[in-house]
Amino acid sequence: MIVVMNNGANRQDIDQVLDRLQSLGFKIHLSEGVERTIIGAIGDKTILNEVALEAMPGVEKVVPILQPYKLVSREFKEHSVVKVGDLEFGGKALHVMAGPCAVESREQLLETAESVAKSGATVLRGGAFKPRTSPYAFQGMEEEGLKLLAEAREKTGLKIVTEVVDPRNVELVARYSDILQIGARNMQNFFLLKEVANIDKPVVLKRGQSATVEEWLMAAEYLMAGGNYNVILCERGIRTFETFLRNTLDLSAVPVAKNLSHLPVIVDPSHATGKWQYVKPMAMAAIAAGADGLLIEVHPNPAQALCDGPQSLNPENFDSLMNDIRKMAAIMDRSV
Amino acid sequence: MIVVMNNGANRQDIDQVLDRLQSLGFKIHLSEGVERTIIGAIGDKTILNEVALEAMPGVEKVVPILQPYKLVSREFKEHSVVKVGDLEFGGKALHVMAGPCAVESREQLLETAESVAKSGATVLRGGAFKPRTSPYAFQGMEEEGLKLLAEAREKTGLKIVTEVVDPRNVELVARYSDILQIGARNMQNFFLLKEVANIDKPVVLKRGQSATVEEWLMAAEYLMAGGNYNVILCERGIRTFETFLRNTLDLSAVPVAKNLSHLPVIVDPSHATGKWQYVKPMAMAAIAAGADGLLIEVHPNPAQALCDGPQSLNPENFDSLMNDIRKMAAIMDRSV
Amino acid sequence: MIVVMNNGANRQDIDQVLDRLQSLGFKIHLSEGVERTIIGAIGDKTILNEVALEAMPGVEKVVPILQPYKLVSREFKEHSVVKVGDLEFGGKALHVMAGPCAVESREQLLETAESVAKSGATVLRGGAFKPRTSPYAFQGMEEEGLKLLAEAREKTGLKIVTEVVDPRNVELVARYSDILQIGARNMQNFFLLKEVANIDKPVVLKRGQSATVEEWLMAAEYLMAGGNYNVILCERGIRTFETFLRNTLDLSAVPVAKNLSHLPVIVDPSHATGKWQYVKPMAMAAIAAGADGLLIEVHPNPAQALCDGPQSLNPENFDSLMNDIRKMAAIMDRSV
Amino acid sequence: MIVVMNNGANRQDIDQVLDRLQSLGFKIHLSEGVERTIIGAIGDKTILNEVALEAMPGVEKVVPILQPYKLVSREFKEHSVVKVGDLEFGGKALHVMAGPCAVESREQLLETAESVAKSGATVLRGGAFKPRTSPYAFQGMEEEGLKLLAEAREKTGLKIVTEVVDPRNVELVARYSDILQIGARNMQNFFLLKEVANIDKPVVLKRGQSATVEEWLMAAEYLMAGGNYNVILCERGIRTFETFLRNTLDLSAVPVAKNLSHLPVIVDPSHATGKWQYVKPMAMAAIAAGADGLLIEVHPNPAQALCDGPQSLNPENFDSLMNDIRKMAAIMDRSV
Repeated sequence: MIVVMNNGANRQDIDQVLDRLQSLGFKIHLSEGVERTIIGAIGDKTILNEVALEAMPGVEKVVPILQPYKLVSREFKEHSVVKVGDLEFGGKALHVMAGPCAVESREQLLETAESVAKSGATVLRGGAFKPRTSPYAFQGMEEEGLKLLAEAREKTGLKIVTEVVDPRNVELVARYSDILQIGARNMQNFFLLKEVANIDKPVVLKRGQSATVEEWLMAAEYLMAGGNYNVILCERGIRTFETFLRNTLDLSAVPVAKNLSHLPVIVDPSHATGKWQYVKPMAMAAIAAGADGLLIEVHPNPAQALCDGPQSLNPENFDSLMNDIRKMAAIMDRSV
Repeated sequence: MIVVMNNGANRQDIDQVLDRLQSLGFKIHLSEGVERTIIGAIGDKTILNEVALEAMPGVEKVVPILQPYKLVSREFKEHSVVKVGDLEFGGKALHVMAGPCAVESREQLLETAESVAKSGATVLRGGAFKPRTSPYAFQGMEEEGLKLLAEAREKTGLKIVTEVVDPRNVELVARYSDILQIGARNMQNFFLLKEVANIDKPVVLKRGQSATVEEWLMAAEYLMAGGNYNVILCERGIRTFETFLRNTLDLSAVPVAKNLSHLPVIVDPSHATGKWQYVKPMAMAAIAAGADGLLIEVHPNPAQALCDGPQSLNPENFDSLMNDIRKMAAIMDRSV
Repeated sequence: MIVVMNNGANRQDIDQVLDRLQSLGFKIHLSEGVERTIIGAIGDKTILNEVALEAMPGVEKVVPILQPYKLVSREFKEHSVVKVGDLEFGGKALHVMAGPCAVESREQLLETAESVAKSGATVLRGGAFKPRTSPYAFQGMEEEGLKLLAEAREKTGLKIVTEVVDPRNVELVARYSDILQIGARNMQNFFLLKEVANIDKPVVLKRGQSATVEEWLMAAEYLMAGGNYNVILCERGIRTFETFLRNTLDLSAVPVAKNLSHLPVIVDPSHATGKWQYVKPMAMAAIAAGADGLLIEVHPNPAQALCDGPQSLNPENFDSLMNDIRKMAAIMDRSV
Repeated sequence: MIVVMNNGANRQDIDQVLDRLQSLGFKIHLSEGVERTIIGAIGDKTILNEVALEAMPGVEKVVPILQPYKLVSREFKEHSVVKVGDLEFGGKALHVMAGPCAVESREQLLETAESVAKSGATVLRGGAFKPRTSPYAFQGMEEEGLKLLAEAREKTGLKIVTEVVDPRNVELVARYSDILQIGARNMQNFFLLKEVANIDKPVVLKRGQSATVEEWLMAAEYLMAGGNYNVILCERGIRTFETFLRNTLDLSAVPVAKNLSHLPVIVDPSHATGKWQYVKPMAMAAIAAGADGLLIEVHPNPAQALCDGPQSLNPENFDSLMNDIRKMAAIMDRSV
């Protein structure tokens, strides 16, 4: 950490900062220049948040040098492979999670599951508890939906991923699902993160729509600090001034997150674009950018979907996408 | 709602959309132009989310005409005054809520409470459960903190506002606090909103840092649809490309929210700016823009604060701010 | 265009709007609902900007239905191929433009030109007039730089693209260059656009860093309305809250722009990321998203570059990128 | 400047950076920690742009410590008052510039001028060359418009401010106008800035809609480095995800710019909001935040305006605003 004193800082201001840092166990380097005095401080980066140095007289700004996360960092571990049964995220194989936004009925779910399995998906997605912008919108089938997901797993061999939205339901969801999903709106719902950290199931952690990559990794740090090391990051679009599509898919976040952390990264082009016509080019681009997998919305009849129909592929389009993904995998030295 | 068909849409595409809308109870106006066919649909705006029209063949886009909220709208009610005991938010009086980011100790809290009461604050703020970006940061005193808040209320007559972050703690927090605060990160934590909607206490609903005004009002609609009509909106800065200050305080959201809804609106310049030097000008500007009150962080010794020290006013600066707010109130035809 | 009257609008307000629209030659459809009166207006979309309907009493909002551009639209033309000598942008072949940020010296430029030509680039880029954020930074070699670019063309057969930044220099730059580039900062420098519209040379039009896709296409409309139909769009990153990389490359803008317009679209991953390590994954992703080509910064010695060194590939890395692009082209049914 | 080496940097990497910095005249402080080696470099901050350190092997990042501007900085000068004839910007008096978006006719301009002068404005605004998003929109009366502005000055005693958009017209505009305006889209049109820097007239420099405060100040540095020290900064809204109003007025930029620089700052709430109903609260808030003046659009008949009618006040509303501004000035210890 570098503390930059402002050019009106006096001896007493500087000494107070030095005392504060030393009392917290930091090692100090002082550099007194003509225009500014600069203090370098080396110590436990995880306690920086506790130190309100910018509130001290004479301090102009504090510049962190090290990233604020530890367990997520590639300095902690070079590379992680997250296992879901026999599937490996972050290994050579790409994995595609596919299915409807929401579980709506037994027929809808089983039909989708069989179809995406045939096309090459390895994980079935489907929401049982739906966080909806409007209180008047369909809110999900709840436990009944979880049971249908489990039945679809039985029938198809697909693994199951579903969102957990409430700390009170974490154990319930974990009883049925192979992977827990933390949605974009809950990326900084720290009390939910702490609960999920206690569960022995892999987690797909979606990036919040206004979260920096660093904040996303800090949310992963919450999970790991709480004991759950099986985190799969998922980029799903950020909010910008451009509103033609729902969000702006930030594909550079894929190589950035893989460079800063050791965790696997997948991409959800369905939520990012909000329009099914753009799902294929963005899915292809995601793999080209280095993603380890995809999360794709598929519905047997998108125009009748209770949730996110406009962004759902129908089974034919999903099958066509999988064919193209296989070609892409080949040149990226990956398999599907 | 206006449905714009694309210029390749054929008769069958149009008929399918008309059928769908009519089956949902919408009244239809069809306008077939040279370049586009346009369908106007009038009906229950709250079910629009259920209708995946954009997934239907031939549909170019759907343009909502009415706002998606009902109870929050000024068409539902002209003006609301939210009562907290004998305090009225949205009436002639401005109210200032002040206190530390986090309750840290009995001394810190009581000293702050007495000081802000003397300066003219009417509500004491203080966090007992703290949502922190880092898992290694101070997470709050929990119920012990709530008890100290209640003690401070006894001693000073100030009302109490504190954040509720977990649906499991809503009743606990409501036992102690006069006002429940929903933080910016939880504005779309719908399962928390539903729980708070069941409680008979006023709510301060902070705008999410990437929430549009419309989404903010939809979050208020969750509270009202669940039965809690005592909602106070709080603007606290949005995330933009400008990073010199922590967030960009969107003061135009104050007249916009007051124009679209009947709810009182307050402003938190402390979190928005993140630096105490900018709290006073932004607090003054907030009142000038029409805000009904302020939420201000005050700490007896900001440099020793366990949370958000750099943005906290010390008691002297808070007292000076209150003097200026009184002058501002006079020209705005408000009282303090 | 749809005009939504507010719910307090009276008969006179509505009649005034109808009169105004009819006097401007619009055909009118009136729909009087219970909650709102809505007026549909069909006519010349290019004069909408002239009509200040939202300033009229009783008007709540105006919703445009058609895009505001004409010549750029796919309703005007299905697909354009822009020819630069024997090169075709928007055809089957992908084209890579490569070279240094700025022309710095004869040696630097010729060495780079020979190297990128050997690796498979077809166009040499290099700035002679540099728009720099700091007035103290290197501002370019001006006409001397243009001459060196022309010499490099002689030696290598590469076409030349260089930026034009001042309406006074458009003819000068056009004398030397095969393609004129409009930089991101000048995308809405309308007086420069009008001058470039008069020149019979293809134009690379970069998207402004805070321009919507619609505004980008309107800038292209300026060029086409002025007579220059040879426009190549270039996505180069937008400004968002995420600052780890210089900008956020918006790859979904590629299929969006190709869907809304008939123009070829290329991508500049060098400026978007600002760090050479991220150029390759983003270049690959750009082609996977459907781009017709790339604009890549290459410097023989990035650490000595006078401009944008950190984002420049060295010749070896560029050669490796070209090898990967060839593999990508094959699966995308393109050639290099 | 602080250079942070990555944790794989070796001796040779470090030595190369040290050599590079020393050859450029920087004084060096080396700090070799366990996790990172950090190099502090003190020297001429204006040449930092020339040094591509991040392209050197082993360099993780470069953190600037000092602001990149010099002449704009409060370390160069404590406080500037910009004189326009007998008006002083940045002194005790607030100044309001008012008038139509575009000069449309003699009658329109003179009527507006007389009315705003009577209400208390001291400067008349009006565009003669209009940068318009659509090539089909009204582009201004050009020199004829400038002559009308000069005539209005004769008749009313108001000073004149008008926008200059093309380096070829700077002298022409300067012949008629008392103040030159650089519009938001041209804030980084460096070739225009250099031309305006040569003119002996005060300049209103609008902040670009996606410019940071630092970039805005760097644009002012261009003007000052070129010899024009009479710069008035103007905040006019930034582009964010919130689209209910045209832009997000960033009022915290007022105290920030006044804290980082010595220049006067005014605010344009008309362009920021795009809707006249929001001009008054935002104008009041701007003065409360510390602005030295306002730029307000006024039109005798907004619904007939050729440009920006929806955001224009009519004369009555402007007069009412000026009354409120006078009350605000009194409590802010300013005069009107």
